[in-house]
Amino acid sequence: MTLVTPRKPGGFNEYLPGEQIEYNRLRDIIRAKYEKYGFTPLDTPDLELTEVLLAKGGGETEQQVYTFKRQGSDTSLTMRYDLTVPLARYVAEHESELIFPFRRYHLGKVHRAERQQKGRFREFEQDDIDVIGSYSPIIDAEFPAIINEIFEEFGFGEFTIRLNNRLILNGFFEGIGLASVSRDVLRTIDKMEKITREELVAELTSIGLDATQVERVLDFTTITGSNDDILAALKGLGLESGHFDDGVIKLEVLIDALRVMGVPESRFQIDLKIARGLDYYTGTVYETILDDYPEVGSVCSGGRYDDLAGYYTKTALPGVGISIGLSRLFSKLREVPGLIQTTRQSPADVVVMPINDAQNSYGISVAATFRSTGIATMLYTEPDSLKDKLRYANRMGFAYVVLVGEAEASAGTVTVKDMAARSESTVTVEVAVRLISGR
Amino acid sequence: MTLVTPRKPGGFNEYLPGEQIEYNRLRDIIRAKYEKYGFTPLDTPDLELTEVLLAKGGGETEQQVYTFKRQGSDTSLTMRYDLTVPLARYVAEHESELIFPFRRYHLGKVHRAERQQKGRFREFEQDDIDVIGSYSPIIDAEFPAIINEIFEEFGFGEFTIRLNNRLILNGFFEGIGLASVSRDVLRTIDKMEKITREELVAELTSIGLDATQVERVLDFTTITGSNDDILAALKGLGLESGHFDDGVIKLEVLIDALRVMGVPESRFQIDLKIARGLDYYTGTVYETILDDYPEVGSVCSGGRYDDLAGYYTKTALPGVGISIGLSRLFSKLREVPGLIQTTRQSPADVVVMPINDAQNSYGISVAATFRSTGIATMLYTEPDSLKDKLRYANRMGFAYVVLVGEAEASAGTVTVKDMAARSESTVTVEVAVRLISGR
Repeated sequence: MTLVTPRKPGGFNEYLPGEQIEYNRLRDIIRAKYEKYGFTPLDTPDLELTEVLLAKGGGETEQQVYTFKRQGSDTSLTMRYDLTVPLARYVAEHESELIFPFRRYHLGKVHRAERQQKGRFREFEQDDIDVIGSYSPIIDAEFPAIINEIFEEFGFGEFTIRLNNRLILNGFFEGIGLASVSRDVLRTIDKMEKITREELVAELTSIGLDATQVERVLDFTTITGSNDDILAALKGLGLESGHFDDGVIKLEVLIDALRVMGVPESRFQIDLKIARGLDYYTGTVYETILDDYPEVGSVCSGGRYDDLAGYYTKTALPGVGISIGLSRLFSKLREVPGLIQTTRQSPADVVVMPINDAQNSYGISVAATFRSTGIATMLYTEPDSLKDKLRYANRMGFAYVVLVGEAEASAGTVTVKDMAARSESTVTVEVAVRLISGR
Repeated sequence: MTLVTPRKPGGFNEYLPGEQIEYNRLRDIIRAKYEKYGFTPLDTPDLELTEVLLAKGGGETEQQVYTFKRQGSDTSLTMRYDLTVPLARYVAEHESELIFPFRRYHLGKVHRAERQQKGRFREFEQDDIDVIGSYSPIIDAEFPAIINEIFEEFGFGEFTIRLNNRLILNGFFEGIGLASVSRDVLRTIDKMEKITREELVAELTSIGLDATQVERVLDFTTITGSNDDILAALKGLGLESGHFDDGVIKLEVLIDALRVMGVPESRFQIDLKIARGLDYYTGTVYETILDDYPEVGSVCSGGRYDDLAGYYTKTALPGVGISIGLSRLFSKLREVPGLIQTTRQSPADVVVMPINDAQNSYGISVAATFRSTGIATMLYTEPDSLKDKLRYANRMGFAYVVLVGEAEASAGTVTVKDMAARSESTVTVEVAVRLISGR
């Protein structure tokens, strides 16, 4: 038989066991925190009707999707390229069945038929939460609180959640007579960190800003200091814009709420430069930077929007949400030497190894006892030499190895090897349970 | 703007929140048990290279897949239609990086472009475990032990794991001179439960069996009784076949191991009729029937095979595994009135509701305290009337509602409503934590 070379498609990811265990640990943290804040799980099909998914139409997106059309069928299906459009479709389709405000989390893979290049995936996981149908500014504060809990538990060092409100930006432009070109100015501000001051000035001038306006934009975007400093500076600008005032009040409510929630002040910072794109967000916006790995970019972003599902329903569906691109985050952090530990190859805490077949039955009962107390246990009954058995246990990264030979089987004991401490002791099964579970 | 009707594609499933929570509960049980037995998580891309995925080629499968080919590209991608072929590809591709025996679990969606009909899904979840690279018969016993734990925790009543060994079937046919037509005979036996005895005899005769052979096949397949009865009857047949003897010994080892593992005898039953298809399985085979819902058919099946990845590698990769079709199981059990409870709309145990905006800050701190003790908590700050707030809490199915009004905020207390008991009490936050968490 001619063999086919086994290979995954380019641009698609898969992990070896040690990596997958660590990836799942992060994923479980995200899920647990989302649930702790009362978000409901949601899952939607990987494929959507093309005309529904691409209702928005046009642009780059349509070139970057996996579309499927069967011969003889007039139904065209497309793989989802994010979790937001499926959410919009779901909420609009099930509007009468859902209870609003509707808060859901969705951990799922999305697909983009991108050109292959480093750091770009054609399949990646997005872990989203959104609250749909609420205008309460307190809701906006729950997202940074969740981000804080997640990244604290991740243990990748300190991090900063950058906050802004689009009403402040839009109101500011109104206040200085730039409402008509605000999109262009925002687009320029968005890349402030990547270009020089001279380039910035040139670009703003080419948009049509006069010298005073350029100066005011630069002054505005360089307002820095503590959160209270920035709020005070904003109030002191004396701008005449209802949007601006509304934005400042909402930002202040957000900051106050974060303090009451106990999020450390060092972890959230107003940053007036943050816009998060041009069209979608209309209120609070978020970005999250890992302080030790700023090169990764924002690891969790989002914001408030006015209109989730305008293509599907006339009902106004305001919302606010964030997304963690876990595949991308994981792949970036994998490149940091020593950060992601992948030595553990099994979720089991211990492996039980009968030394000979004659002890298989005893080994089975020991493993059953361990499992009945909640200890994740692997039973290893391969007919290997003791040396090969221990080599296997070592490579698998087990914390404990439990050997049962003739002596143990007849005495009703086990020999527990603590692999980290390089120590061993022969004890009763009951004592072994306590040793292994640390109780 | 013209609205596009929001609708999911036909043949694809999605759940409302209450259903999804219950679906996830079942999924979490499966995952927890798989991990408890030391299976390592694995995930593979949703799409595979078509030529790799369909290496086996031909047949119905190729007509039932979602295949994508981009214009101008010669790469054809196909969505996986099961988790076994991706496992074979993965193991063959990463052979040198994996540690054998390799045991993995994989909970994932698969896609089949089937004709639409009731009970057939184009997207469904399979929850698989396999051990690759072990011939140990003890391994075969771990699967029924895991099935036992999973379905016990599911709580859908009693169930029976049916066991057989293909070596017994194959050896039996050898022993009575039917080796050359064993596939045809097996195919006939496989539908024994669906056809009459007369039809069965007619079919066996048409295959070429003489009257004695028909009699022996019928006698063999109707051997019933306790597991020990069946093992004794098999040993008493006096067949001259090494395969048969080997199969009986392995079945006996399996039964003995299940007893040592503490699986109740009532839950596993040798059934000599079970073959689970013709080509793939070569040793132990499993099926699982819910005693109260036999019409659902087998809810967890699998077995031992000799050659996982023959299309990709010359390395012999024997394995054994089972699969739970969770989407199908869930959809069937949803039809049983009252079996699947879907009243709970949020993973949160409690909702904290400030009565007026003035208590938002106090409500935030109460919710933060609850969450810090591990209680999943929703904070509800919509500007509704108290009546509307309680209506929301009722519809969402919360077990507890915590109200904080002016009195509570100034006294540092909360009013806890136990929704099931229809009782309420005003207590300190500390006492509320104990009430809600049941500590």
